Amino acid sequence: MTIDLQDNAPRTPPLPPAGTGRTLRDVPMPGFVKRLAQRLALLPGQPDMASARHIDRLRRTCNEALAKPNKIGGLVAIAHVADQYAAMSPAERGVFFNLLRDEFGVNPAEVHGAYDAYRDGADEPGAALIRLTKALESPRLQLFRLFNTIPAGIKFLVDLRAELLRRLKGDPGLRPMEFELRHLLESWFNLGFLHLERITWDSPAGLLEKLIAYEAVNEISNWGDLKHRLISDRACFAYIHPAMPGEPLIFVEVALVRGMPDNIQRLLDTSGPDLRPEEADTAVFYGITNAQAGLHGIPLGNLLIKHVTQRLRAQWPKLDTFVTLSPLPRFRQDFLNPALENGGLEAFFDEQQAQRVCALAGEETLGRAVWALLERPAWPEDREVREALRDGLLRAARAYLLNVQPHNGQGGQRTVIGGRAACPVAHFHAANGAVLQRINWLGDVSPRGLRQSAGIMVNYLYDPLKFESHQNSYMAHGRIDAGRPVLAL
Amino acid sequence: MTIDLQDNAPRTPPLPPAGTGRTLRDVPMPGFVKRLAQRLALLPGQPDMASARHIDRLRRTCNEALAKPNKIGGLVAIAHVADQYAAMSPAERGVFFNLLRDEFGVNPAEVHGAYDAYRDGADEPGAALIRLTKALESPRLQLFRLFNTIPAGIKFLVDLRAELLRRLKGDPGLRPMEFELRHLLESWFNLGFLHLERITWDSPAGLLEKLIAYEAVNEISNWGDLKHRLISDRACFAYIHPAMPGEPLIFVEVALVRGMPDNIQRLLDTSGPDLRPEEADTAVFYGITNAQAGLHGIPLGNLLIKHVTQRLRAQWPKLDTFVTLSPLPRFRQDFLNPALENGGLEAFFDEQQAQRVCALAGEETLGRAVWALLERPAWPEDREVREALRDGLLRAARAYLLNVQPHNGQGGQRTVIGGRAACPVAHFHAANGAVLQRINWLGDVSPRGLRQSAGIMVNYLYDPLKFESHQNSYMAHGRIDAGRPVLAL
Amino acid sequence: MTIDLQDNAPRTPPLPPAGTGRTLRDVPMPGFVKRLAQRLALLPGQPDMASARHIDRLRRTCNEALAKPNKIGGLVAIAHVADQYAAMSPAERGVFFNLLRDEFGVNPAEVHGAYDAYRDGADEPGAALIRLTKALESPRLQLFRLFNTIPAGIKFLVDLRAELLRRLKGDPGLRPMEFELRHLLESWFNLGFLHLERITWDSPAGLLEKLIAYEAVNEISNWGDLKHRLISDRACFAYIHPAMPGEPLIFVEVALVRGMPDNIQRLLDTSGPDLRPEEADTAVFYGITNAQAGLHGIPLGNLLIKHVTQRLRAQWPKLDTFVTLSPLPRFRQDFLNPALENGGLEAFFDEQQAQRVCALAGEETLGRAVWALLERPAWPEDREVREALRDGLLRAARAYLLNVQPHNGQGGQRTVIGGRAACPVAHFHAANGAVLQRINWLGDVSPRGLRQSAGIMVNYLYDPLKFESHQNSYMAHGRIDAGRPVLAL
Amino acid sequence: MTIDLQDNAPRTPPLPPAGTGRTLRDVPMPGFVKRLAQRLALLPGQPDMASARHIDRLRRTCNEALAKPNKIGGLVAIAHVADQYAAMSPAERGVFFNLLRDEFGVNPAEVHGAYDAYRDGADEPGAALIRLTKALESPRLQLFRLFNTIPAGIKFLVDLRAELLRRLKGDPGLRPMEFELRHLLESWFNLGFLHLERITWDSPAGLLEKLIAYEAVNEISNWGDLKHRLISDRACFAYIHPAMPGEPLIFVEVALVRGMPDNIQRLLDTSGPDLRPEEADTAVFYGITNAQAGLHGIPLGNLLIKHVTQRLRAQWPKLDTFVTLSPLPRFRQDFLNPALENGGLEAFFDEQQAQRVCALAGEETLGRAVWALLERPAWPEDREVREALRDGLLRAARAYLLNVQPHNGQGGQRTVIGGRAACPVAHFHAANGAVLQRINWLGDVSPRGLRQSAGIMVNYLYDPLKFESHQNSYMAHGRIDAGRPVLAL
Repeated sequence: MTIDLQDNAPRTPPLPPAGTGRTLRDVPMPGFVKRLAQRLALLPGQPDMASARHIDRLRRTCNEALAKPNKIGGLVAIAHVADQYAAMSPAERGVFFNLLRDEFGVNPAEVHGAYDAYRDGADEPGAALIRLTKALESPRLQLFRLFNTIPAGIKFLVDLRAELLRRLKGDPGLRPMEFELRHLLESWFNLGFLHLERITWDSPAGLLEKLIAYEAVNEISNWGDLKHRLISDRACFAYIHPAMPGEPLIFVEVALVRGMPDNIQRLLDTSGPDLRPEEADTAVFYGITNAQAGLHGIPLGNLLIKHVTQRLRAQWPKLDTFVTLSPLPRFRQDFLNPALENGGLEAFFDEQQAQRVCALAGEETLGRAVWALLERPAWPEDREVREALRDGLLRAARAYLLNVQPHNGQGGQRTVIGGRAACPVAHFHAANGAVLQRINWLGDVSPRGLRQSAGIMVNYLYDPLKFESHQNSYMAHGRIDAGRPVLAL
Repeated sequence: MTIDLQDNAPRTPPLPPAGTGRTLRDVPMPGFVKRLAQRLALLPGQPDMASARHIDRLRRTCNEALAKPNKIGGLVAIAHVADQYAAMSPAERGVFFNLLRDEFGVNPAEVHGAYDAYRDGADEPGAALIRLTKALESPRLQLFRLFNTIPAGIKFLVDLRAELLRRLKGDPGLRPMEFELRHLLESWFNLGFLHLERITWDSPAGLLEKLIAYEAVNEISNWGDLKHRLISDRACFAYIHPAMPGEPLIFVEVALVRGMPDNIQRLLDTSGPDLRPEEADTAVFYGITNAQAGLHGIPLGNLLIKHVTQRLRAQWPKLDTFVTLSPLPRFRQDFLNPALENGGLEAFFDEQQAQRVCALAGEETLGRAVWALLERPAWPEDREVREALRDGLLRAARAYLLNVQPHNGQGGQRTVIGGRAACPVAHFHAANGAVLQRINWLGDVSPRGLRQSAGIMVNYLYDPLKFESHQNSYMAHGRIDAGRPVLAL
Repeated sequence: MTIDLQDNAPRTPPLPPAGTGRTLRDVPMPGFVKRLAQRLALLPGQPDMASARHIDRLRRTCNEALAKPNKIGGLVAIAHVADQYAAMSPAERGVFFNLLRDEFGVNPAEVHGAYDAYRDGADEPGAALIRLTKALESPRLQLFRLFNTIPAGIKFLVDLRAELLRRLKGDPGLRPMEFELRHLLESWFNLGFLHLERITWDSPAGLLEKLIAYEAVNEISNWGDLKHRLISDRACFAYIHPAMPGEPLIFVEVALVRGMPDNIQRLLDTSGPDLRPEEADTAVFYGITNAQAGLHGIPLGNLLIKHVTQRLRAQWPKLDTFVTLSPLPRFRQDFLNPALENGGLEAFFDEQQAQRVCALAGEETLGRAVWALLERPAWPEDREVREALRDGLLRAARAYLLNVQPHNGQGGQRTVIGGRAACPVAHFHAANGAVLQRINWLGDVSPRGLRQSAGIMVNYLYDPLKFESHQNSYMAHGRIDAGRPVLAL
Repeated sequence: MTIDLQDNAPRTPPLPPAGTGRTLRDVPMPGFVKRLAQRLALLPGQPDMASARHIDRLRRTCNEALAKPNKIGGLVAIAHVADQYAAMSPAERGVFFNLLRDEFGVNPAEVHGAYDAYRDGADEPGAALIRLTKALESPRLQLFRLFNTIPAGIKFLVDLRAELLRRLKGDPGLRPMEFELRHLLESWFNLGFLHLERITWDSPAGLLEKLIAYEAVNEISNWGDLKHRLISDRACFAYIHPAMPGEPLIFVEVALVRGMPDNIQRLLDTSGPDLRPEEADTAVFYGITNAQAGLHGIPLGNLLIKHVTQRLRAQWPKLDTFVTLSPLPRFRQDFLNPALENGGLEAFFDEQQAQRVCALAGEETLGRAVWALLERPAWPEDREVREALRDGLLRAARAYLLNVQPHNGQGGQRTVIGGRAACPVAHFHAANGAVLQRINWLGDVSPRGLRQSAGIMVNYLYDPLKFESHQNSYMAHGRIDAGRPVLAL
């Protein structure tokens, strides 16, 4: 299972690109003004605003929206802004972001004035604080909030943030805007608003189509492949927001099997006989995908696995083991790379094996030798190589996975007192209360699996009765609890 | 139609009162911890927290919730806070609010530090602003946000605010907390999240039951009465929030008739023959009710009438007139009361009529005479009184209704540039783009109608093609547009 | 629990009575032609047919419907027949039934001709059989089938049969028509088409209203009473037909309790504390009601209890006992009535008790004495009477309940090989596989309970693992299996 | 548009073929016994019946089902029959059909006895008729009816009839059985039970998958192609039976365009720009498909077009023209084939053209020449051929399409008094009230279009105001009404 927040950003279906003369058939997006007109049976939009391409007109339209919140005139204005944004070229969008950054931000004079009153205690206590808080709410944040009053406005904002995130590196001045938008979306994508839905082969095709588009890790190649992941001994669950129906936010793919699996290729193989789900004892979470690039950094996955576990047990009471089958996506790059000179692998290989590895690779140092062997495309098929690397790499993986870097004390993430695991996947599951149960040799022999995880895969185990104590181990003490098979390595 | 935001506060079904040993059968509220346990299949709650009645335990539980946001432990903590609050006596709740006020508010030291960095520009620009904004987000606001992560948590917050509003007068120190909670709810009860639902006789009984409980103005006496308001030539629409299903937020009652109605008793009479809805040409909005005291001040009604109008036209294309039948609930008290000495009614009565009124009442001044006649319980049945008062009172009502008090420039309501109508109902409809179409003599002869509106009722007309220009008249120029019948008075 | 098929016939909401100039507000039934016109956007009905009140016009309209099955013209014709029927007086309806009886029945000449061909084997084998079968399908049966092609037509047929059943005694000539209609409805109300729905307080009010109207046994007095039967530790399930949404066909009321209940008044008492349903171990079926008089005799209830049992166990796995609390509605009249002279009660009373009973009643024979005591209105409050009657009456009840009258061999009910229980309630449950588990003294002290069941109530026990063998006992061998408490009497 | 009842029979997803050791992954059909066990929480099936492969066991199981209708034992028996049938080889199925034919048919002795009583009038009148009717209801018909009491039983019956239809030619003795099953299904697939559903891209994938599988005429090549037929300016409607959710019975594909289309290739071309549906004036029914081979001969399509027309107009009020684009699938074979010697084409070609045709083909007679030219694979690309054939073939097509063969008076189809069109598609639409509006030269140049319809396509026009009179023309007088373009040919 990979948690893949960043990678799939470009896959998010973008608003239609600029300059295309007509709405694409595949993007049934009839325009925000039109949709609003349909909802409220308005007359066609005002020509003055409809033609507003130039920046001063856009500024005026934004101001009109702010001046008439929750009024028809304001709604029409905000819909026009959305339609114009959708039709803009990348360069024009840059101008638009600059406009928001420079002219719709917090007014420093107001902040200073409000702060002075607050500090002096001149006003009624409370009133000064409220005034200061208001001064720090920028007009563009109010504008963002207004987008949600028009149909499909929330999806617009999610996509707007995806764009903003892409531009952030190039322009740190956009950070406050991004902070505001993230804060708003975090409030709106609060757990209390999300529905956990089981996705089945009887779900709307328009929703399933998005699974195919978004699945980041174990690619879904076509509708037939998708069907295999939804029927029989497979299941899929997604969080859905009621204002974005038909759009999965995050989804998890589950296989129902007997016994803890150790290899992703065997798990995904569709040619073998199916298990009747009621005979399974183990649920395997083999893929979690964040589907909305614009929701990056907003914690949707924390409770997902527990929530799904509860659903699975209610339907199939015989399930008693809940595990993942997960990669170590940065293991090879961050831990095995000899360029890192991070101490050497000698600690993990016994001497005899180290010599064999060096001999096989024709390298002098163990680090270079391991790296060289792993560079060979189909090394797992070479029995000698396989056997020479096995024990040492497994021990190295264990060390990597259990490594928690002490927390530097900075930043707002006061929840991670204990530190942070070097492996992001390990961090996600440890913070959720999972145990590092087993490390599987040659668990993923796909090119990607070899390149990222040196072919290794991990089972994280979720024990409903104990995840709270495991979570505490990690969060309070920076310790990742390991299962017997890992300890026995 | 009355917009009745304050009155129905006490009708909101409160959380169970303190000290009742058992959950009431009529209040199927199984406890927040229990519901959470059901959702996530948790073990029963920790005994330590379950018994926490004392303030230090409550403090600890709140801190635990804040320390583990979106983690199981944090969720359990927040559910315990909710359960404890539900079981508290009024006095205990007071202590709880004080705790939030005093210990979970903004930390002034953090604010000062952040402000200094912001002012000095020491930090990276943007980072300082973000830090200041974060410093102004109090822990209790984070706590409020967390309540929504547990089942039924949003309704808990709405009811919490209803309680807070009741306590606000007695303790102005609660104001920042109320501001934070209102701001949060305003963000969550954003128009984009609400569904407009037609309420019918086939709606869930649990929802209909609430209409009976909440209807503020033209009371619904029983299920039979309610049925008459939902079938045949009647309709009802409500905004519903997806996270509070079965709870109407605001609802409007509509009658389908031929011609603009001038009397509420005739409109509500159920003994006459029904009209087939497809033969109606006029939709009458005869009641709008805010159902949630805890959402007081959050603008839900602004687009409601337009939204409903659109729905009605889609279903019955022959409808071409959309009007209200509305009271002037403060007319008698604020305009006719002789104690006010606000200039005299002489301007509205011609001399002959004024003398007749004085003679009938046996009073010397017109103001006192009018007041005296209106004090008579069944004055509309006395033809002489009726005729003497008619023209003068109608003219007085027109003056009252068209009176817009200039805006004093203070406060944040920058949207009302032009001022604010003296009559709150006139304000609501004028701000929504309605025209003061007709003033109806003896439009409501119920005791309440006579006591509040001197028996007069008003039709506000919504013309879909023109409401934007009417709205502008009012909001930009402080002018309420009047229809021909009013102008002709 | 009473199975009450006949009694509630008059409660079925009839089609509007004849001669009322307008559709009643409470009966939102806009006419069959109008509904059909709405579905298919037809022009207004043909004037010729619309005015058809006279019998020859009705005959012509029926023939037109038969001539154009599944064509627009035929549909309009059938809708006109339905509208005319709805507007007819009772006498006119009689004429209509006579028309169907005399002119739309089977054509004897066709039957004779087809039979001759069948007997002679002249035609191709098979073809002759088909021809004979067709000859026996009367035009009126085809007409009945056509009613279902118009909106609300199936409910029309159900109500038509209710009317037909009422007229059957007066006119045996209607029997073939009734047979045809029953056969058709039996085919359409086949188990495969029915949905088992849990009725809750969130069910449509229009459906709940019908529960109040139909409940036959333990009357539902108002909406508050109904609510008590739907929430907390109560449940209600109904079979619904998809073509008659909002109309329960048969429904069962369930109480979740601890331990097998012995008294209906205590069970229905709403003042006591509620049980949390998940703590209950016993589900009590305390009322089954057939809601449609027009479906009398069509077996809907056979699988209902098993189906409901399965649902209850899925939701509350701790439930392990499924019982009824049922009356013996004909016990006093059919078994204790001294006028019957059916052998005497002496077998059930020991001598001492028999003397005491006679002494208390001042009667000489035991039969008359028992009867006399039972005639006293509040006899259960008299301790002496109570104790004198107890043992003897319980033994008498046992004898009555276990009495299975040998089957006379006639009729088509070949499924009851073993005979038929004297008590109709015992028959229903024994045929469904229940055990006569316990007989409860003073289980129902309401006037009705005393009058019908001499105050006694019975628990029939449904054991999911054994009902098939119990069913076989009864159906193959005419034996009702009894539980230990009954055997121990 | 083709009405294609027979062709797609083999496409119906069959029950799993015999002998496969396991349920196929693509056919999630867990067995009838298992599904029944799930619904009613039964114990696993009786071993005795489960192993019943042999014919005497099957007979016994059928008798058990008949002996316990609506009882658990009977249901289990019937589910076992279904499971056994599903697992049978074709030969075994033949034995099963023979069993039903020979041992579960009508009992002649009962028929004779009942008839005698009926003829003699010995019994009470009515009773004899009922007895005779019952005697003609075979046990196997009762068995069929019982299949619907188990989950998925109705689909089982539909598929059973598909199999029966395939066997009918080989064994006429199956005809009464087929008649009974058709009659039963006709009663159950009555218009009153069907829902008209719009199929969209948000319909369940499991349903859409079936459209791809069933579409007979203009093949749907993949999911992308399907999507194009469901969004934007396309629509699709299907009748669904509530007891067979997810299974379309018959569906119609609609294109929204401007002006009446004359060519199917242009209509289906997906590369051109889309029309906004609200700008369309014409709805084109370009494909009607019967999806269930087992419902062959049961009239589902009669009202479909009117029903869909009503829906389309309600959503897009600007639509004012409703036409088909239909083939003449037997035109070339039945009318142009020179082997038929049916009078000669000379009547349709003027002399000059006839000579040109003969010259181009190098044939002496016109009939052979036309046939020879049509045999050339890509003749429409040869301008000379195209022009030589055009006028003559169009006139021939008109003659063919308007040809109504007088009715021979036999059979039960008394609704077609006037006769029956030679072209089956013309018959379908004329009987539904359509007008033969236009005949389009080179309307379908696909290989299939050339082979069947000589490249010609027809527009049938549905005028909602007139279809009843057109229907009468055809049904009463055997006349197909033609539009102006056809008359002008």
